[in-house]
Amino acid sequence: MTTTTDEFFRRWADISAINAAAAVLAWDQETHMPPKGQPARGRHLAVLAGLAHERLCDPALADVIDEVAREAEPGSDLDAQVREARRAVTRATAVPGELARALAEHQSKALTSWQQARAANEFPLFAADLERMVVLTSERADAYVDAGIAEQRYDALLDDYEPGARQATLTPLLQALATELSPLVLAVADSGRTIDESVCRGSFPPDAQRAFAVEVATAMGYDFGAGRLDESAHPFTTGFGPNDVRITWRWHDDDFRPGLFGVMHETGHALYEQGLPVDWDGTPIGKAISLGVHESQSRLWENQVGRSRAFWEWALPRFRRYFPDHTSFGLDDLWPALHTVTPSLIRVEADETTYNLHIVVRYELERQLFSGDLAVMDLPDAWAASYEDLLGIRPSGVDEGVLQDIHWAMGAFGYFPTYTLGNLLAAQLFEAAERELTDLSGLLSAGEFDALLAWLRHTIHTKASRYSVEELILQATGTRLTPDPFLRYLRANVEAAYGFAV
Amino acid sequence: MTTTTDEFFRRWADISAINAAAAVLAWDQETHMPPKGQPARGRHLAVLAGLAHERLCDPALADVIDEVAREAEPGSDLDAQVREARRAVTRATAVPGELARALAEHQSKALTSWQQARAANEFPLFAADLERMVVLTSERADAYVDAGIAEQRYDALLDDYEPGARQATLTPLLQALATELSPLVLAVADSGRTIDESVCRGSFPPDAQRAFAVEVATAMGYDFGAGRLDESAHPFTTGFGPNDVRITWRWHDDDFRPGLFGVMHETGHALYEQGLPVDWDGTPIGKAISLGVHESQSRLWENQVGRSRAFWEWALPRFRRYFPDHTSFGLDDLWPALHTVTPSLIRVEADETTYNLHIVVRYELERQLFSGDLAVMDLPDAWAASYEDLLGIRPSGVDEGVLQDIHWAMGAFGYFPTYTLGNLLAAQLFEAAERELTDLSGLLSAGEFDALLAWLRHTIHTKASRYSVEELILQATGTRLTPDPFLRYLRANVEAAYGFAV
Repeated sequence: MTTTTDEFFRRWADISAINAAAAVLAWDQETHMPPKGQPARGRHLAVLAGLAHERLCDPALADVIDEVAREAEPGSDLDAQVREARRAVTRATAVPGELARALAEHQSKALTSWQQARAANEFPLFAADLERMVVLTSERADAYVDAGIAEQRYDALLDDYEPGARQATLTPLLQALATELSPLVLAVADSGRTIDESVCRGSFPPDAQRAFAVEVATAMGYDFGAGRLDESAHPFTTGFGPNDVRITWRWHDDDFRPGLFGVMHETGHALYEQGLPVDWDGTPIGKAISLGVHESQSRLWENQVGRSRAFWEWALPRFRRYFPDHTSFGLDDLWPALHTVTPSLIRVEADETTYNLHIVVRYELERQLFSGDLAVMDLPDAWAASYEDLLGIRPSGVDEGVLQDIHWAMGAFGYFPTYTLGNLLAAQLFEAAERELTDLSGLLSAGEFDALLAWLRHTIHTKASRYSVEELILQATGTRLTPDPFLRYLRANVEAAYGFAV
Repeated sequence: MTTTTDEFFRRWADISAINAAAAVLAWDQETHMPPKGQPARGRHLAVLAGLAHERLCDPALADVIDEVAREAEPGSDLDAQVREARRAVTRATAVPGELARALAEHQSKALTSWQQARAANEFPLFAADLERMVVLTSERADAYVDAGIAEQRYDALLDDYEPGARQATLTPLLQALATELSPLVLAVADSGRTIDESVCRGSFPPDAQRAFAVEVATAMGYDFGAGRLDESAHPFTTGFGPNDVRITWRWHDDDFRPGLFGVMHETGHALYEQGLPVDWDGTPIGKAISLGVHESQSRLWENQVGRSRAFWEWALPRFRRYFPDHTSFGLDDLWPALHTVTPSLIRVEADETTYNLHIVVRYELERQLFSGDLAVMDLPDAWAASYEDLLGIRPSGVDEGVLQDIHWAMGAFGYFPTYTLGNLLAAQLFEAAERELTDLSGLLSAGEFDALLAWLRHTIHTKASRYSVEELILQATGTRLTPDPFLRYLRANVEAAYGFAV
């Protein structure tokens, strides 16, 4: 390597270390920090964010990247390093400092008014701050457009979370999904058939839930020597390099599903992070490529694996050891209770089928907000109409409607679609793994998860940010992203659980 | 405030935030980090240290300090801010970058060879690295002398940990102490009298030890809403501002003393940190003034309070609730077992009387190493001779002799005296508190610790680094630092525990 390349990696390692330190502080804040520590922690995190930003925007870094770009062979690892470095630098430098400060300040104001409005069930208490957030976010998006990141305002926002995502491909994908899913959901609701979920309910001591979840996570391949499991109000995964990737969980005392599937979900995220190449740690391509791809890993383990009959053939005898009061039911009683389809108003409580309709609602409303076709004051009505249309139900108040999510108060427009992209990709990857591995179902029912993990390591994890999302999916599955595998998966489940085909 | 003063505080807040972030990472490393996270953590901490150092050495900061110095009224808070800022900047800029790097690199080499030498009980395996550490540290000390920090090499090292400490005052103090203590220790040993410590031994379940320690720490005034207690291999206290100050502990299953007195010790440190003025957090004078003063707070609570009859009048009934198998003894059985005097070879296991002789040995050897009067190869013999002279015992091997401490392998010469300074000051402060508070003993026996804490808050904690150590002690106790209160305290204990006066 040349001296310039050395300097390039040295500068990036510094920025990456600052971000890793901030991630440790953020993890601590959610898991262990004493309550009075909050104000100082906020200041310390702001300083670290400023330091990382300052270094990303250093003109000397841009010069170094340009020099390295001249040396990098097209298609090489180094070329990908340059691409990812430029992506980060372009985003950091595109937004004027004054706008960034205005956004940061408005964020805390909007979070407060959102909380108040939600508690009071009064949208007008939040409307003005949301409107201002849309204005400021539009300015941010326009700055991205000016910097050449995307051609359209909302595309520039999508690209923040899912590099390369554009409405031109996303809209037909999500509309096709809604067109297929909505009748499915409505048909189940209209059928009047319900599934007995009582086997999942009762008393599940937290210690036993934790021990069972740890056994499952360990079997999945999560390395507790390079990770840990803590409690937090909202489960999440964070990593400070592949050798320190931590997950959190919470649980319900009276239903084992949220705790177990929460841990399997976060473990899916964590396996991705633990599988990133150590040699690339602290370099531009050393990180996960997108939120959608990340979500595909969590969803695949949570749903395609965790809700499968094969998995439960292995897991149920173990489950009975941890929960000796819950041994009277068998797989045929349990499996349907893991595949209910119920239209509901709250996204985070939705089942895996209806969940995506919640996302489609938000995606379409965001697009209209940023194209100017929808005014903020008209949001509650538009929200209710969309729910009526896609799910057949209407919120009785804004607290269970447009005010339920924190995302908009944080200015995180363009984030929601990544959840559904993850769901689609999870099914597509699982079908590919079924094709490429001999008897995947047999492996899962024997608790032999390493073949699947090895396949994900090879196709996704070790690729980190070496390829674009599009290339990565094509290489891994042989096709571009498509809703078909996910729809096949859902239809098969509905047919098996409810006893009729849609 | 002027714009310049604003900039001064803004720059310092940034440096302070980087240091706070590093402290969070260091805490996590000792308490929660998974083992495989170590290499990346080391890199991240090095980057943060480099960032803080770079900002301290920024010539623009020196200019700002000079400008603020011109505005600050002599004797004002701002004047003290300038003094402490200059102290930090002078130290940071004094050491050439190449020497700092050489020291950092040699530190990890020396730590490794020290561990190997100690395990093999072979001093020669460490001698060359120790010699190089003395050479590099001498260069560092000479750089400090050149920068005007102190006039003598070893004084410049002392000043690192104890601002203002000089051999000219420290040597007579420690020699006087040794002159009084050594005969006391030898007299107890020669008397052949021993104390029955069986009441402190037996089985003490860790959960009960923890709960008892938490009750004691809470009663002392430690705010768990701004702190927490975790396990670590070596107990320590760390703070990221007065509202987040954390302590750690370890325990022995078969003796309650190490766990309880460890927590009381760390809580003493933590009360100091929690008592620092919030308004000064992130400013040059917002931190504890010295290691010696810090140790005075931990030792006062551990020893003057925690080993007193008054404290145990309150604590013993509570102790019995946590340890129902240990209720057969009374205060007269327990108290002597908290005041044994036994010459021993290992510093960290020494009692409060002999401990200081371990320190005197190290102080005198360090002085000779840095004056050139002692060669590294002659250290083991000089060590053994000193122990024989002061404590009447000789190590049978270097593992329980010169290789027992980690400090020299880290280049931390000049650190040891702060332990004894803390012991002396603890006794001096406690005598002052006894004079100034009505019936301190009665308060302690009633579990009313807040008057003592308020007095320490007023005299020490809220002063932070506003005054020099010398001024602080004078203001708090009416006299300069003296060994007399500590010697009175020890003599009284020995007389009461062993039944004869020395």
